[in-house]
Amino acid sequence: MPDVLVILGSKSDLDVGRNAIAILELFDVKAKMVVASAHRTPERVREIVDTSPAKVFIAIAGLSAALPGVVASTTTKPVIGVPVSGSMNLDSVLSVLQMPPGIPVAAVGLDRGENASLLAISILALSDEKLNKKLLEYREELLEKVIKDSMEVESQ
Amino acid sequence: MPDVLVILGSKSDLDVGRNAIAILELFDVKAKMVVASAHRTPERVREIVDTSPAKVFIAIAGLSAALPGVVASTTTKPVIGVPVSGSMNLDSVLSVLQMPPGIPVAAVGLDRGENASLLAISILALSDEKLNKKLLEYREELLEKVIKDSMEVESQ
Amino acid sequence: MPDVLVILGSKSDLDVGRNAIAILELFDVKAKMVVASAHRTPERVREIVDTSPAKVFIAIAGLSAALPGVVASTTTKPVIGVPVSGSMNLDSVLSVLQMPPGIPVAAVGLDRGENASLLAISILALSDEKLNKKLLEYREELLEKVIKDSMEVESQ
Amino acid sequence: MPDVLVILGSKSDLDVGRNAIAILELFDVKAKMVVASAHRTPERVREIVDTSPAKVFIAIAGLSAALPGVVASTTTKPVIGVPVSGSMNLDSVLSVLQMPPGIPVAAVGLDRGENASLLAISILALSDEKLNKKLLEYREELLEKVIKDSMEVESQ
Amino acid sequence: MPDVLVILGSKSDLDVGRNAIAILELFDVKAKMVVASAHRTPERVREIVDTSPAKVFIAIAGLSAALPGVVASTTTKPVIGVPVSGSMNLDSVLSVLQMPPGIPVAAVGLDRGENASLLAISILALSDEKLNKKLLEYREELLEKVIKDSMEVESQ
Amino acid sequence: MPDVLVILGSKSDLDVGRNAIAILELFDVKAKMVVASAHRTPERVREIVDTSPAKVFIAIAGLSAALPGVVASTTTKPVIGVPVSGSMNLDSVLSVLQMPPGIPVAAVGLDRGENASLLAISILALSDEKLNKKLLEYREELLEKVIKDSMEVESQ
Amino acid sequence: MPDVLVILGSKSDLDVGRNAIAILELFDVKAKMVVASAHRTPERVREIVDTSPAKVFIAIAGLSAALPGVVASTTTKPVIGVPVSGSMNLDSVLSVLQMPPGIPVAAVGLDRGENASLLAISILALSDEKLNKKLLEYREELLEKVIKDSMEVESQ
Amino acid sequence: MPDVLVILGSKSDLDVGRNAIAILELFDVKAKMVVASAHRTPERVREIVDTSPAKVFIAIAGLSAALPGVVASTTTKPVIGVPVSGSMNLDSVLSVLQMPPGIPVAAVGLDRGENASLLAISILALSDEKLNKKLLEYREELLEKVIKDSMEVESQ
Repeated sequence: MPDVLVILGSKSDLDVGRNAIAILELFDVKAKMVVASAHRTPERVREIVDTSPAKVFIAIAGLSAALPGVVASTTTKPVIGVPVSGSMNLDSVLSVLQMPPGIPVAAVGLDRGENASLLAISILALSDEKLNKKLLEYREELLEKVIKDSMEVESQ
Repeated sequence: MPDVLVILGSKSDLDVGRNAIAILELFDVKAKMVVASAHRTPERVREIVDTSPAKVFIAIAGLSAALPGVVASTTTKPVIGVPVSGSMNLDSVLSVLQMPPGIPVAAVGLDRGENASLLAISILALSDEKLNKKLLEYREELLEKVIKDSMEVESQ
Repeated sequence: MPDVLVILGSKSDLDVGRNAIAILELFDVKAKMVVASAHRTPERVREIVDTSPAKVFIAIAGLSAALPGVVASTTTKPVIGVPVSGSMNLDSVLSVLQMPPGIPVAAVGLDRGENASLLAISILALSDEKLNKKLLEYREELLEKVIKDSMEVESQ
Repeated sequence: MPDVLVILGSKSDLDVGRNAIAILELFDVKAKMVVASAHRTPERVREIVDTSPAKVFIAIAGLSAALPGVVASTTTKPVIGVPVSGSMNLDSVLSVLQMPPGIPVAAVGLDRGENASLLAISILALSDEKLNKKLLEYREELLEKVIKDSMEVESQ
Repeated sequence: MPDVLVILGSKSDLDVGRNAIAILELFDVKAKMVVASAHRTPERVREIVDTSPAKVFIAIAGLSAALPGVVASTTTKPVIGVPVSGSMNLDSVLSVLQMPPGIPVAAVGLDRGENASLLAISILALSDEKLNKKLLEYREELLEKVIKDSMEVESQ
Repeated sequence: MPDVLVILGSKSDLDVGRNAIAILELFDVKAKMVVASAHRTPERVREIVDTSPAKVFIAIAGLSAALPGVVASTTTKPVIGVPVSGSMNLDSVLSVLQMPPGIPVAAVGLDRGENASLLAISILALSDEKLNKKLLEYREELLEKVIKDSMEVESQ
Repeated sequence: MPDVLVILGSKSDLDVGRNAIAILELFDVKAKMVVASAHRTPERVREIVDTSPAKVFIAIAGLSAALPGVVASTTTKPVIGVPVSGSMNLDSVLSVLQMPPGIPVAAVGLDRGENASLLAISILALSDEKLNKKLLEYREELLEKVIKDSMEVESQ
Repeated sequence: MPDVLVILGSKSDLDVGRNAIAILELFDVKAKMVVASAHRTPERVREIVDTSPAKVFIAIAGLSAALPGVVASTTTKPVIGVPVSGSMNLDSVLSVLQMPPGIPVAAVGLDRGENASLLAISILALSDEKLNKKLLEYREELLEKVIKDSMEVESQ
């Protein structure tokens, strides 16, 4: 019973998906990753979303990235969209971002699978104090990493 | 029994749709125009496309213009996509154009409803000699219009 | 005690903010709107975010739209960013979207205040069955609106 | 006697052309590929198009990709344009897409030779039941490929 | 017997064409303006260019602005291309500019009909001392205009 | 005594300059290539242009490519600008193209040194019948190259 | 004896220049505004910059905005460049920003004359304690304005 | 006691930072380089800036590059922003450049760490005659390098 379902528009988006899964595993969030294309398998997308117990969906796609919007059109749960880089970049970025009024997608940056998972975690953490604590610790580690990096840079 | 079905993603795309319908009527092609949003009414899009006797579909949409791709994912008939202008333009242009391998959409230029219909007519004319003749006459009229415009410009 | 805090980067973003507030009021979600600039009043942003009981933040800004990122850097709660249109558009869109790894912002489309609120509502609805029901009804109304628009278009 | 004529603007567009030809051969569609430049050999383009028995033309070109438009200006048969990637991309994309009123080109995505052929096949299939059946089978295979990919991804 | 032939791709480009003609008249350069569309009347373009005694061609066009390239493909005389602004701008700019190796077009800025004429004049002036003198005087007047403008600005 | 002076904004533009020189040598046009930066050596640019006997200038530069404009501000002879590719491309393209009214630059495509030279040759050929004949022969060779390429492609 | 010299590339840039002057006057910084075009009057630009006692230069220009770079090539004093909006915007933005190594320009945002002056003031304030104090007060007023705006927004 | 503080948004911006430091060392300007992220360590940025004796700040960042603006919001001293290249480039360029009225950042070109330092030096040189002399010598060397490069190119 995953809390977050990661949907790849194509197997070629796997690297971005793995970054998303790695963060979810780090936070012990139950997650599952599947491939389902908005254009090649639209009914499969709908069926997967309709029957999934997940609370948050992460949809990862490139080119004319319709997947996040198609997922959002099927559910009222939060949908996070990750545009995948390619030869144009603005195609996936604007396809994910520029949703019409009424059907929101939460877009994160190009290839930012890890941020999609952190956003999902911040949503789940609203009603999960333990998860919220882990998120605060993660932020603390980011801070310590910056300080460690700075010491390395300063000592050069 | 329309030969061409014009689908608007939103009533706000009506001006572009009317230009498409005007050309289809000029060529006596049976056509129908409906509104069906890929994001707000995905099942309606599928149902309309599945049950339509149309031979060619024209899908007109702005922003993250998923409609042409969603129509194309539902049918193997030719689908023509018209991106509609807005505050960014590249959003609808790239969403309509950059389809993944396997599911083609025939994109025409920004707001070019009339060209979508002329493309549909050129497809139907492959097996309709009368329509083909009208198309040749239409081209002839475009030529005469340019010559008339040139005479006006030259005489200034 | 608002559940959603809407922060405008400048009073000139008020129209987009009003669209956000209108949706939140429609769903009876407790909301508050303030002005706090990431560049002119950075400490005020931090203080407002640190002391707010809100569960979700909506940050609305144009130009080099640092506000959503600055809010996200101050809290681990979900932060939704709305880029505001201007003479370039890509400035606010990319500033909101392209956050670094570790600090996610949920970006919605240009000027899409209403979608920011619907996204906030979908997050709150995860633990509020009544709100979830309203959201499903809202989707149903969007569907009915499309059908009504289609009947108007078809009857012309 | 080809049903589809693939015209390359330059021999450097050959990879995209081969993808187009591979799909046409997969569907047993009679096809031929030639090189003819809109800018270096304009009369050759016209002569080739005027004398070809092909029902659909696929024109593949980069940079200021005038070839699809020049082909479309010579025939009233359907013309599919494929923009080829280079150092700018938007040059070929917009040159192929933004045709003036009256002379449509059916643009497909950047380097999408295979989609150009699938679009040509969907046009030919309107009056060729056998081809239509193959197209439906091809879609089925796309679906199966997605499911197979998903099983691989899920089992990792 | 014009020395410069100004070709408009469409009557809608007339304003840019008039700016070009105004400069040519100011320099007493014999000029003529016609309308001929690369896409709607390709043979007319070829015929006009082939039979024109003009030494330099100015081709003015918007959207997928193939006209300058089509003129250049027909003649080895200098061809100056003027992209015309529209809803995208980059479409005409890149279509005019990004010519393939072997067939050059001299592009000037968006809507810069007057600069196209000044460029044509600088070419004609290479073998016309009187024209060259006028060009030097024109530059002098530009200089005086800047000084006059500066005095107005400084005295405010 | 060169007829064409090729000015590089930086030694890093040498590859594009060599393509320009190669074409000029092919046509036996007397040419010279120098380095002079609009930003690092503005007075050198002015001095070189003021004292050069060249009839046409080719200015090649990247980034904020001011060189063609600075050359054009110093002479009334024809100035051809070649934008050089880099990490942005639009910077050099628009800097070369978007000259203000009064001071034209003849822009050619990104990295198109050879086209700059062919344009210079078409200008010189207006008063040099022998050069004009070579230019026609060159066009003929382009045509033959396309036909040869086509035969190779067709025989695969 | 101005401390800041504001140079407009054209009288059409006057509105942006006035915003710059207004801020300089507010801070009692001695300033002067002139018109001098990098392309139409290059020697005038050089002469003005060479003979000016100003400590900081503000150069305001649109299109291919060479003026800031030309000023910077003439002086080693700080040069602030203001790109002016037009039909493309990226032309002036990238022309001002993308200076080659060795010759820096301090670019501010599109049409941001007031920010150019505030940047100049921050530079002058490094050795002028009174000016620095005014700058801190100005920041304080910005803060108070945001709080006042917020109170208005909150009370609606 | 550094005169210039170079702040990297991330250790991955180190190459650009080293170019900045190299120039500062060449001019014997006291400098220090640290890492501090606007999004991961906002309070650290503020603390570093508040307590630094530096006269000029150089902030180097990629993606949604909020760092220069956050530094500028904390100090009234001159802040120079360097956008770092990535998969989009316009994200960092516009985030650094498009600051709101009241809070200026001096943007230099993409990855132009050396120009940031030269700009800082030109500011410090306003009240340091020795530094000013070094800057004039540096310009002289740039000039000599161009002449040397030209001789190499001319002798080929």
